[in-house]
Amino acid sequence: MAVRVLTDADVARRVSMPAAIDAIEAALARRAQGRFVTPPRHYVGNERGALAFTIGGDAADGVIGFRVYAMGFPGGSRDDQLVAVYDAASGRLKGLVAGSWLGELRTGAIGGVAIKHAARPDAATLALIGSGGQARTQLLAAAAVRELRDVRVYSRDAARRLAFAEEMTERTGVAVRPAASPEDAVRDADIVITATSSRAPVLDVALLRPGMHVSMLGAKQRDASELDPAVAGRATAIVTDSPAQLESPVPSFLAGTPDAGRVTDLASHVAGGPPVRASADDITLFLSVGLSGTEVVVADLALRE
Amino acid sequence: MAVRVLTDADVARRVSMPAAIDAIEAALARRAQGRFVTPPRHYVGNERGALAFTIGGDAADGVIGFRVYAMGFPGGSRDDQLVAVYDAASGRLKGLVAGSWLGELRTGAIGGVAIKHAARPDAATLALIGSGGQARTQLLAAAAVRELRDVRVYSRDAARRLAFAEEMTERTGVAVRPAASPEDAVRDADIVITATSSRAPVLDVALLRPGMHVSMLGAKQRDASELDPAVAGRATAIVTDSPAQLESPVPSFLAGTPDAGRVTDLASHVAGGPPVRASADDITLFLSVGLSGTEVVVADLALRE
Repeated sequence: MAVRVLTDADVARRVSMPAAIDAIEAALARRAQGRFVTPPRHYVGNERGALAFTIGGDAADGVIGFRVYAMGFPGGSRDDQLVAVYDAASGRLKGLVAGSWLGELRTGAIGGVAIKHAARPDAATLALIGSGGQARTQLLAAAAVRELRDVRVYSRDAARRLAFAEEMTERTGVAVRPAASPEDAVRDADIVITATSSRAPVLDVALLRPGMHVSMLGAKQRDASELDPAVAGRATAIVTDSPAQLESPVPSFLAGTPDAGRVTDLASHVAGGPPVRASADDITLFLSVGLSGTEVVVADLALRE
Repeated sequence: MAVRVLTDADVARRVSMPAAIDAIEAALARRAQGRFVTPPRHYVGNERGALAFTIGGDAADGVIGFRVYAMGFPGGSRDDQLVAVYDAASGRLKGLVAGSWLGELRTGAIGGVAIKHAARPDAATLALIGSGGQARTQLLAAAAVRELRDVRVYSRDAARRLAFAEEMTERTGVAVRPAASPEDAVRDADIVITATSSRAPVLDVALLRPGMHVSMLGAKQRDASELDPAVAGRATAIVTDSPAQLESPVPSFLAGTPDAGRVTDLASHVAGGPPVRASADDITLFLSVGLSGTEVVVADLALRE
């Protein structure tokens, strides 16, 4: 039996960020109706590392499937992640996607949905803390849902932030400038995205201003988190793409704080619940965990094109 | 990233039954030493069906991976099963196998190991009850580990058993003749293989004779089993490739009988434990459940060739 296997290049050519955002938004709406199932992650390992499975998809029509990747093995992360897509009604295998771009595109698209529903409609200035792959896709997603005019990027390595600014100015058509400090980046920003590998706070809570939206992409475990829990304390609304995954398998940086109970499911807002943002002065916070099953939705777009 | 995907035809060309039997036997020996991990199956479903994952492999070197297939969906079983093989030391994806032949070859090879360790060394006559894919691969496997001279096949459809006999005489070089009844097939057989889709007993316990080996491939749940528990009662030794899988997720046809506690792990015998068969007059019974992780071992053979 021949199986279709798409690569990173195929996905990049076939699926635009706006199309991925639309597909994720629709999946979140189905999730709020109980039509999109996202069971907990499943790990099977040996003494060296583990295979991690995120499995999920639609209850009756649409697609189901899984992503699998090796984690913890010597040599670190790999680009040979696999996503398999099955027809949710018939169980027929539609195809596979192999590579790392799909996962980045998917996380970007989830971030785009969050910004669409949480940032001010007139948000135009964006601050990025971090200049890696996640920062790249969050910026692409933000540019798809808001009319950005001014983007600043800070990361510790001046050469990397300069290269990021040049590359992303070219890719987005928006002026992206390197910032000399987190303060320089965040000052007067409508949207702040933290996307670092840091396990200690990278954003001073004193920089928060009324009306800001913050998207947090990096580590968010207790005692190892990219943001101070005080940022959540300042937020009027806190949303995540998966409340269950936020606290499992390890407690989040909000566990045990009064804010843990205030975290709402992005899906419920997308599906016609109350808006995330009640007023222009609200501070909103999005905790990105990477909802299981959403890779399958984006992979299906690539396989359908 | 390009991923190698082999098809049924590739596997058939690259992996002989004797090579698969050797690989499975080696994996069982590692299993007895705790070097081959086989966690329980994992199912994730929607309201129509489920994806079933059998995951497993080697602890430190060799391979780990999984098989996944859709089950329960309208339209029944499919040939688009996937097996993914990873290097157990590095976590690197070695490749995929898509199709149905690998699973059949693997189950055949496990049966070959069982016959090698449980049937009399001079076993030469074989009776098959059933003429489907499992019967085919069990015969190929038996012919790889014993000098067969006489094979009889019974199944309810006379045309199918005749076609099976003609095809398998050609493929094995051993005379395979259609039998008019189970009695006609089983009389004086050294090895009896039941490989049917029946959920009721297909072998009269009165046909058992000292020295026989019986391999049971079909349904073995309580209240839905291809053999009467009395067959196990007559057996001197009862082995299975996975004691855990035999009783999970549903109890086996032996649950609650005195024989349930006598079932031993084929791996322990392969790895230098006591022989399954203590004397030429013993009646031995193999309960084939399809040990998780073994598909990965056979797929690796195909990817290595």
